[in-house]
Amino acid sequence: MNGISKTPQPPYYAVIFTSERTEGDNGYGQMAEKMVELASQQPGFLGAESVRDESGLGITVSYWNSLDAIRNWKENASHKVAQEKGKAIWYKRFALRVCRVERDNFFEM
Amino acid sequence: MNGISKTPQPPYYAVIFTSERTEGDNGYGQMAEKMVELASQQPGFLGAESVRDESGLGITVSYWNSLDAIRNWKENASHKVAQEKGKAIWYKRFALRVCRVERDNFFEM
Repeated sequence: MNGISKTPQPPYYAVIFTSERTEGDNGYGQMAEKMVELASQQPGFLGAESVRDESGLGITVSYWNSLDAIRNWKENASHKVAQEKGKAIWYKRFALRVCRVERDNFFEM
Repeated sequence: MNGISKTPQPPYYAVIFTSERTEGDNGYGQMAEKMVELASQQPGFLGAESVRDESGLGITVSYWNSLDAIRNWKENASHKVAQEKGKAIWYKRFALRVCRVERDNFFEM
């Protein structure tokens, strides 16, 4: 999940997850790594981009080939455990937005 | 542009801008601030979320009420100057994706 994802021609789907972390790690780092690995093994996964700054604000965007792929990932058992822990421990607040990517544009210097 | 944007009920539109910065500031910080201020004055602007980490990877998501609003912002004269400088000086590479937000979900601890 380093850098910019090489996604295919639109249309495809994006999940924008913006979050503010609570203080302390409390197992977050290990879970986050595991979830990225697990997500990348799901059918329909196209890539993910993730940044968190020192203030604890983070944006993770994952890309998928269909709404069904997003639904299946949402219902994944290990992911559901992580979602519950996210609400109970790791996140002060978050916003999750499911989008259809209509067009894109890549630039390389 | 601090934290999570309080966007209205979907559908609305998102522009996901993922970028890798070159070394050094070279006027980037000042321009970025100015562009956020200018964008927020545009018709149809709904909010923006932005994070950059120490490696220079950043994700900025801006939210808009229509594709026309996005098009107008793209064609804004000051923004066009910033876009050119971005390609010439500030960014190693970037991806820009225009999306329609279909559903969202907010959580607060």
